[in-house]
Amino acid sequence: MKPILLNAFSMNCVGHIHHGMWTYPGDRSADFNQLDYWLDLARTLEAGLFDGLFLADILGVYDVYRGNIDLTAREAIQLPVNDPLMLISAMASVTRNLGFGVTANLSYEAPYPFARRFSTLDHLTGGRIGWNVVTGYLDSAARAMGHTAQQQHDRRYDQADEFLDVNYKLWEGSWEEDALDNNPARRRYADPDKIHLINHRGEFYQMSGYHLSAPSPQRTPLLFQAGTSRRGIQFAGRHAECTFVNGSTPEAMRDKTRLLRQAAVDAGRKPGDIKIFMGVGVIVAPTARQAREKRDHYLAAASPEAGLAHFSSSINIDLARFGLDQPISMAPGGGIESVSSTYSGWTRRQLLDQHALGSRYPIITGDPAQVADALIRWADEGDIDGFNLTRIVNPQSYQDFIQLVVPELQQRGRYKTAYTPGTLRHKLFGSDRLPERHPAARWRHPYTTTQGA
Amino acid sequence: MKPILLNAFSMNCVGHIHHGMWTYPGDRSADFNQLDYWLDLARTLEAGLFDGLFLADILGVYDVYRGNIDLTAREAIQLPVNDPLMLISAMASVTRNLGFGVTANLSYEAPYPFARRFSTLDHLTGGRIGWNVVTGYLDSAARAMGHTAQQQHDRRYDQADEFLDVNYKLWEGSWEEDALDNNPARRRYADPDKIHLINHRGEFYQMSGYHLSAPSPQRTPLLFQAGTSRRGIQFAGRHAECTFVNGSTPEAMRDKTRLLRQAAVDAGRKPGDIKIFMGVGVIVAPTARQAREKRDHYLAAASPEAGLAHFSSSINIDLARFGLDQPISMAPGGGIESVSSTYSGWTRRQLLDQHALGSRYPIITGDPAQVADALIRWADEGDIDGFNLTRIVNPQSYQDFIQLVVPELQQRGRYKTAYTPGTLRHKLFGSDRLPERHPAARWRHPYTTTQGA
Repeated sequence: MKPILLNAFSMNCVGHIHHGMWTYPGDRSADFNQLDYWLDLARTLEAGLFDGLFLADILGVYDVYRGNIDLTAREAIQLPVNDPLMLISAMASVTRNLGFGVTANLSYEAPYPFARRFSTLDHLTGGRIGWNVVTGYLDSAARAMGHTAQQQHDRRYDQADEFLDVNYKLWEGSWEEDALDNNPARRRYADPDKIHLINHRGEFYQMSGYHLSAPSPQRTPLLFQAGTSRRGIQFAGRHAECTFVNGSTPEAMRDKTRLLRQAAVDAGRKPGDIKIFMGVGVIVAPTARQAREKRDHYLAAASPEAGLAHFSSSINIDLARFGLDQPISMAPGGGIESVSSTYSGWTRRQLLDQHALGSRYPIITGDPAQVADALIRWADEGDIDGFNLTRIVNPQSYQDFIQLVVPELQQRGRYKTAYTPGTLRHKLFGSDRLPERHPAARWRHPYTTTQGA
Repeated sequence: MKPILLNAFSMNCVGHIHHGMWTYPGDRSADFNQLDYWLDLARTLEAGLFDGLFLADILGVYDVYRGNIDLTAREAIQLPVNDPLMLISAMASVTRNLGFGVTANLSYEAPYPFARRFSTLDHLTGGRIGWNVVTGYLDSAARAMGHTAQQQHDRRYDQADEFLDVNYKLWEGSWEEDALDNNPARRRYADPDKIHLINHRGEFYQMSGYHLSAPSPQRTPLLFQAGTSRRGIQFAGRHAECTFVNGSTPEAMRDKTRLLRQAAVDAGRKPGDIKIFMGVGVIVAPTARQAREKRDHYLAAASPEAGLAHFSSSINIDLARFGLDQPISMAPGGGIESVSSTYSGWTRRQLLDQHALGSRYPIITGDPAQVADALIRWADEGDIDGFNLTRIVNPQSYQDFIQLVVPELQQRGRYKTAYTPGTLRHKLFGSDRLPERHPAARWRHPYTTTQGA
């Protein structure tokens, strides 16, 4: 019986997944600009032995619904949204084991400073940083970056492949393992013969430089990815160590996890080289009846319409244009491809029901035993490794889970009772570094001439 | 008598200014990847009522001296160098008043995510963030960013002018002052009518987007700048709130400060709208003799040659090519212009003497009264507002200063005895926001049509 892995799923903003819940009494989501809010959260999660805090991010705004940002602003649908990377060192300073998976869109970044940013965080966290690789899907982001349109979907993945290769070269190849000497007596901090110039001439990127950071505990950050299109799964099979997948049933989930693990095998890796996480919301109380009552209170605060406004951007279709009972055909290629295909033909009424709690994420409601049963069924029948737990009420949802569900899972032997020491990758995979079969490893040995070349 | 302002001058690396001093017993510079090192530093500086911690940064490596990075690696001359922005939230979480001035090179950044990064830090620090505006001067950075060469010196400032304008629009103009409502009862977190689309079509930048962050305590971060070329001074006169200037004597300094304050007036601002800081190293002990002994110990650990390797990149001339007593002519336009003009005609021997403590920064050595005398003379005769205090031995230099010099300056009424509450800008200028006469203010009132335009 595999232990179940657990991330808290959050974002540096007010409304993340369960839209409208910022209005619920006691919800702290609007405190996101206070450092104490994040320090409290990090401490709470570490006390609950969470593997990580997974931080989503978005560049751009949700302006598809009614063609404006009215509801986005009113319900704080991921707007305002602040830079998640700026939060990490503060939370790292009050924790010792909690991992941090941070979303960063590579489409508008240059590898040279980007690699340094993550190396810096890997150093400061003692090897607890992960990067959720995304390429973005919002036209509003492209316009804000000075482009007239986004790059076409599959081309974004081609660019991402190359972006990762350049970063692998910097992270894994520029400094040899023992390049750092830190020897005052010999007056040698680093050995110049073991620091290598990275020369890259590719289709999307060109560079010639030394990585600015010395080798960090994990070198390459733990790699998260969430693509579920055909090209996205191929990409995940090649690069991802953790993926984030949603499915409507455990059976549907198993189909997806099979594809993902096969994609890893196709890329010369092993099925278990990818840990698969599913997003879920949990409403738990000491009794099933109390849990249902809690859910009813939550439903009253949530905004299904705000959920639909968010969803409109995900599929790049203004859902306000459709009658309540009119089936909605979703053109492939707009927004997030796999989402469009799942919901094609649904009516707006069905989608509103689906978004009753402000999102389309699956919700588990029950007493601790019922919740544990459901999670274990998802894990075992869906062949997933863990969950990204949404914040329905923030931070109450996490506190409830820690108080009620964690002990239940521990009793059943399905949740750790202490952290494994070491880096985030070591905790999940038993090694600080990516295995030799991962594509990053090929850049590990000096492959360029040294300086001056 | 104006109180003297004080920043600690540091960097997210081992060797910053006084090269070679990482070898001095007890120096903690090589701990820069440990969060505790930075938390300790922040607490120390706040206990000493420092106005700020000023963090330098560099993209690129010093590869001009002997045409390689041999000495750069051995003496850790700003290599490795990690991202300073990643340090801020941790230090902010253990302080309440210390400001943070962080260097960030704009040449390779896009305004949209850049503006968000600083807004995020302004929120998280409660308005204690400053940005030191630099455009870079290293060819190695240009190559690492995929360019064959840097942009020409004055063109970099043209680009910087426009970069700042776009950022001002985002910081000052996109969200009206009262756009945030945070009213659960009305279900209105923000008022969409008060969030404005920024449309910019310029020579260097194009964008169309809403700023992603709500108004932060200072909106525009406190603006530092250090340019001292003719074009740099013009730029500072227009934008800078704090500048960083070096001069060999108080008289020479006064000439520079006069130019700077005149440049502010020429740009429609007031002479006092710019606070001028000078970089200085202080070696202090209870008696003058002890201070001299301390200096002798320091001199034995320092590396004048490493100082010259750093300096070679500053002037873009390989000083290893010159005989010890051969006058060195420095071509204008290479490296940092004002530096080149100051040292033209010097010999390598003179430069090595100048870099006895690993750098060309002025050093004040003495007992507390002597140091206070010297600082006050620089301040009053040079018409400067404060000092960026280097770390000769780290953090001993700061501790010595706090223990011995701060009380002396306080006794003379030249140093604060408590912090003024409020944001960093409020502490220095009495206002959270830039004054109406600053160019940022012109974007403060909605100037574009609202969303959908």
